Amino acid sequence: MRQFVVVAHDAPLDPDFSLSDLAGSGRLDLLCRCLNAALLTSHGVREDVRAFLVVRDEATIRFSGREIRHLHPDERSTAALIREALSAREDAVGHREVESTPGVYVSKRGLDDVLAAVEADGPVIQLHEDGSPVSELAPPASPTFVLSDHRDFTEAEAVVVSEHADERISLGPERIHADHAIAVAHNYLDTAGYSRY
Amino acid sequence: MRQFVVVAHDAPLDPDFSLSDLAGSGRLDLLCRCLNAALLTSHGVREDVRAFLVVRDEATIRFSGREIRHLHPDERSTAALIREALSAREDAVGHREVESTPGVYVSKRGLDDVLAAVEADGPVIQLHEDGSPVSELAPPASPTFVLSDHRDFTEAEAVVVSEHADERISLGPERIHADHAIAVAHNYLDTAGYSRY
Repeated sequence: MRQFVVVAHDAPLDPDFSLSDLAGSGRLDLLCRCLNAALLTSHGVREDVRAFLVVRDEATIRFSGREIRHLHPDERSTAALIREALSAREDAVGHREVESTPGVYVSKRGLDDVLAAVEADGPVIQLHEDGSPVSELAPPASPTFVLSDHRDFTEAEAVVVSEHADERISLGPERIHADHAIAVAHNYLDTAGYSRY
Repeated sequence: MRQFVVVAHDAPLDPDFSLSDLAGSGRLDLLCRCLNAALLTSHGVREDVRAFLVVRDEATIRFSGREIRHLHPDERSTAALIREALSAREDAVGHREVESTPGVYVSKRGLDDVLAAVEADGPVIQLHEDGSPVSELAPPASPTFVLSDHRDFTEAEAVVVSEHADERISLGPERIHADHAIAVAHNYLDTAGYSRY
């Protein structure tokens, strides 16, 4: 299994955002593209993936590749799934999740809770431009990648991540968008065992 | 320099499309994301990149990283640049380009014309899931990557591409979206010289 935890700093907690202005709604456009990159291939779903959006450290939306329905490549329909999840957030009690649409779960967990939960599944790997080159990382079997949206991790988040992360890895010398980082990380694992010219 | 030629099958030639329904306008959403992946880093522009959108084999829009202005990560503003280019298409005569906004050029060239023009710049590499593994490709200095949108190349296009392409390369075992393929190709070149664990 592969897991991706994306930390969203500006995305709304209130479901009352406009589907026609996702970039203006805390860069929900980028977050939808991250979900697309994590969960979709050209004409299918990566069943063995879970993606988590941690919104303002107050809500976490979990997307399960194995169960998800209604996930399409366009941003608008993905944002509609996020809206449904945020609408169901009030029904979530403590750390318990509520399923808002098939394969989409919302809880009131923050970053620390989510990372504490996933670290049993395999190594936790922070993606960061200042990390070690990915070429030093043996492609792990069940990694969880943690990355930030269009903003850098806050100092408090950086402390939380460092407490849970086994590795801090850079995918290359260029600072790239979060959705592209997810695509590159997938490819790194997809091509595990390949040589490199 | 790196160049990307994206073949768009369903995108409109008429600039009268809705900026609020890009997915419904011949998957312009995907094409905007391809331009984003080709030309933008996290907080900057890849100056040494040119991206070409070949629309229905009747118009080609060229984006120059070195000169471009008004290119932002959101799809809507990128689509507005495409709309401006399509509006200027009638002013383009033969193969000559017209600059529609800074760094964006439109012409009435088709795929064959574009590939004939770029092959002087360096190797032409088709990205295709049935190609040879990228690990067999020495990272070239000035490649042009040719790839298709959400549809496969038509038979006629496949013939044209094979006439110009030096290589046919697969980036990995999964069929991935065109924008993710561009992100992975960039990363392959960005990390040229890196070892592989």
